[in-house]
Amino acid sequence: MTTNVNNSEKKKEWADKKITSRTENYSKWYSDIIKVAELAEYGLFKGSMIIKPNGYAIWEIIQKILDEKFKETGVKNVYFPSLIPEKFLKKEAEHVKGFSPEVAVVTYAGGKRLKEALVIRPTSETVIYEAFSRWIQSYKDLPILINQWVNVIRWEMRPRLFLRTTEFLWQEGHTAHATEQEADERAKMMLNVYKDFVENHMAIPVILGLKSEAEKFAGAFRTYSLEAIMQDGKALQLATSHNLGQNFSKVFNLEFVDKDNVVQHVWQTSWGLSTRTIGALIMVHSDDKGLVLPPKLAPLQVVIVPIWSNAEIKKIVVKKANSIKMNFKKGRLISIKLDDRDVRPGEKYFEWEKKGIPLRIELGPKDIEKNSAILVRRDTGEKKSVSLRIIKKETHKILDEIQANLYKRALMFRNNRIKSVDNWKDFKDEIKNDNFVLAHWCGESEVEAKIKEETKATIRCISFDKKMEQGKCVYSGKPSNRRVLFAKAY
Amino acid sequence: MTTNVNNSEKKKEWADKKITSRTENYSKWYSDIIKVAELAEYGLFKGSMIIKPNGYAIWEIIQKILDEKFKETGVKNVYFPSLIPEKFLKKEAEHVKGFSPEVAVVTYAGGKRLKEALVIRPTSETVIYEAFSRWIQSYKDLPILINQWVNVIRWEMRPRLFLRTTEFLWQEGHTAHATEQEADERAKMMLNVYKDFVENHMAIPVILGLKSEAEKFAGAFRTYSLEAIMQDGKALQLATSHNLGQNFSKVFNLEFVDKDNVVQHVWQTSWGLSTRTIGALIMVHSDDKGLVLPPKLAPLQVVIVPIWSNAEIKKIVVKKANSIKMNFKKGRLISIKLDDRDVRPGEKYFEWEKKGIPLRIELGPKDIEKNSAILVRRDTGEKKSVSLRIIKKETHKILDEIQANLYKRALMFRNNRIKSVDNWKDFKDEIKNDNFVLAHWCGESEVEAKIKEETKATIRCISFDKKMEQGKCVYSGKPSNRRVLFAKAY
Repeated sequence: MTTNVNNSEKKKEWADKKITSRTENYSKWYSDIIKVAELAEYGLFKGSMIIKPNGYAIWEIIQKILDEKFKETGVKNVYFPSLIPEKFLKKEAEHVKGFSPEVAVVTYAGGKRLKEALVIRPTSETVIYEAFSRWIQSYKDLPILINQWVNVIRWEMRPRLFLRTTEFLWQEGHTAHATEQEADERAKMMLNVYKDFVENHMAIPVILGLKSEAEKFAGAFRTYSLEAIMQDGKALQLATSHNLGQNFSKVFNLEFVDKDNVVQHVWQTSWGLSTRTIGALIMVHSDDKGLVLPPKLAPLQVVIVPIWSNAEIKKIVVKKANSIKMNFKKGRLISIKLDDRDVRPGEKYFEWEKKGIPLRIELGPKDIEKNSAILVRRDTGEKKSVSLRIIKKETHKILDEIQANLYKRALMFRNNRIKSVDNWKDFKDEIKNDNFVLAHWCGESEVEAKIKEETKATIRCISFDKKMEQGKCVYSGKPSNRRVLFAKAY
Repeated sequence: MTTNVNNSEKKKEWADKKITSRTENYSKWYSDIIKVAELAEYGLFKGSMIIKPNGYAIWEIIQKILDEKFKETGVKNVYFPSLIPEKFLKKEAEHVKGFSPEVAVVTYAGGKRLKEALVIRPTSETVIYEAFSRWIQSYKDLPILINQWVNVIRWEMRPRLFLRTTEFLWQEGHTAHATEQEADERAKMMLNVYKDFVENHMAIPVILGLKSEAEKFAGAFRTYSLEAIMQDGKALQLATSHNLGQNFSKVFNLEFVDKDNVVQHVWQTSWGLSTRTIGALIMVHSDDKGLVLPPKLAPLQVVIVPIWSNAEIKKIVVKKANSIKMNFKKGRLISIKLDDRDVRPGEKYFEWEKKGIPLRIELGPKDIEKNSAILVRRDTGEKKSVSLRIIKKETHKILDEIQANLYKRALMFRNNRIKSVDNWKDFKDEIKNDNFVLAHWCGESEVEAKIKEETKATIRCISFDKKMEQGKCVYSGKPSNRRVLFAKAY
């Protein structure tokens, strides 16, 4: 039952793990960050993901903040079955075309072959709108504003942790309205809820806009999205909000009697944000030393590392460190940890740097003599001796500065990587240089497809910010009245 | 596209719904309560459940309270894939025997037949412990304390909302420890976390104990459970906590090097509580007028119903009602709603009673003259005029009283339904009378099976509270040293 061994031959991989640099191999760097910060790992079959405690804690913060924001707009949470009879998925023609290739199908259950196959939800429009058809009779039942936090399955052939996995976690909001205008306003309202969250909490600047016909959600009338740039110049879509028009309501017979006693179809929206955003969080802020987290998204914001040379001194510094920690239990709360393990301070610094803790407090006997401590920022590496009298205030201040700095840094990076181009050669060059490109486009899907074929760049969005401007399509030379955003994307 | 109709022919079913009385048909009463309180409904295929906003809000409260309690004991949340390669489920012999008949199997995904079938998790021991085998090397990696809030699928042939559905929501905790004692302590600790939650928040008294061999979890060494009595005298298991011993750790090779450099297998626990508890919440407290919720589990605790006879008076009472509501925004927070819809007060009373709101505040012009309001308790129907000067304090006090009263009422009900019996005739009679029965049992599984066959009663648990006592098995006449708890169960 038990065996004697000389030593544990197994070793924690991450402990000795060197992080590949971003310039050497960006993709490898990304995987290394996830490994050393212990965020996630692959599961038992290709493309499946295990979200580990450090990664899941980030998702819990995302959930908490967004859930509150949704509820402030009147949204309530629900839970719909994860299994959908195949024929329901097939009801909306565009929708089934978009999702059929990705679904996982249950054919046996309870020891028997099922008469009708069930697919695991890739998204829940169909199953939710079938219920809406029973819930909605009159204008008095509208609007319906619901959301669910669930897992979804979309079979992925080229898996990448957080970015593309066979299963991921997300929220999907679904609404029904009496008028087209109200639905479009709701779709844009939720896009702005996402923008507020992504910019102010995740510290990631985003570009808001409309998706092209080719890039929109399968079944949507209009898809709005948030686009951000990663450090390798690729775009990542952080969330989408769809004005579904009456596409689903006609197929699912979502009729209501309006105030004038006329039967009408409802207007709908759906909107979602997933664990994919954690991939963006990593790729926007982290560096070659490891994960970097904005304080508002960091499950652990501050770590105190006491420094000692012998047991007697240990007792003194740990006691002092503990009193610093306790001092944070009042007023504005932060998440703080005292790391008093019997491990060399340097090793601890290294570990917490890799794990992205925004601020480190170092406290040794000399600091105590001066009644001060050293604060070390994760984002800049900057060190500062701070009097213990003002350490609490200073810690809050620096955390706010880190949050602001990460956003500013990401914004500057992005602004430097957006290029306005007016001819096809420059277009190809700037895409090759891993930039975001603003260019005129004639609006034709065939042209969009050709551009993608030749450069791998897609239209990320037709930005809301871009003013009307006469010009010629960078590819076809046909007239265009607005620049759109092109980039290679995750 | 639009049609003129004279009137909406569809009608909200619940609005006119009469509730079947408990004595007339308990099972029908249960379904009626779920319908009128709009908690849940069946989905598109047999046994699937849609949890509606009112039902899901209860689950969110359960999650919030329990999640905090788990974290206080050092548990961290994670997410594991919902799909498990079939061969992994089959690794532990008892486990596969228990779950194989209930699983849903994915055979196609991404447009292709899978080489190896995947089952949707009925529970996640196997997939989680495979990861543990990679995470655990030394005693320094122990204990591992994780939990996940997820959906699980267990195919049900006799569905019943919340109690038995093909899919349900739960949390499953999984831990690994260096010693047998530590694992057993953890299993019991989590049982007590559940007890605290169920008794103090759900207001349901529970009996804690050990499951018999026949009733324990497939793969466990020991299963502990919480048992409660419903108003029809049937038992419902509210949560279970399993000491898994080394059953899984041996199969999954969960080895670690202990402090003395000896390789050992870890000791494990798992523990879970599901949306089934919402079924218990309904069945323990509700009455023939509708849902009754203990204040601590009520998404909406207080509703203010202003009463008016004309528009002028409406303005005055709604204004006053609003000022009462705003007064609750400071200090101890409660969830309070002002119902100023243009609907007769009687209809509102009726609706909020059905939906289980613990306390109603009625406010008419005469009340305002007297600077008072009427408080009406949902649990007892008791009415009381209260001065507006002390209404806030009084509301808090009454909510506390309702919470305490619901527990007390349920406890008295249960104590009246527990019968100690010493012979087989009395045993059969008391089970027939829908009582809980404490009786001697020889400890043999065959005898347990016979008793179930003849009376439908099963051993709910070997209660921790029952002292040793010499006696004879009520069925076999063989010696026994302890009474165990028998009942028919959900």
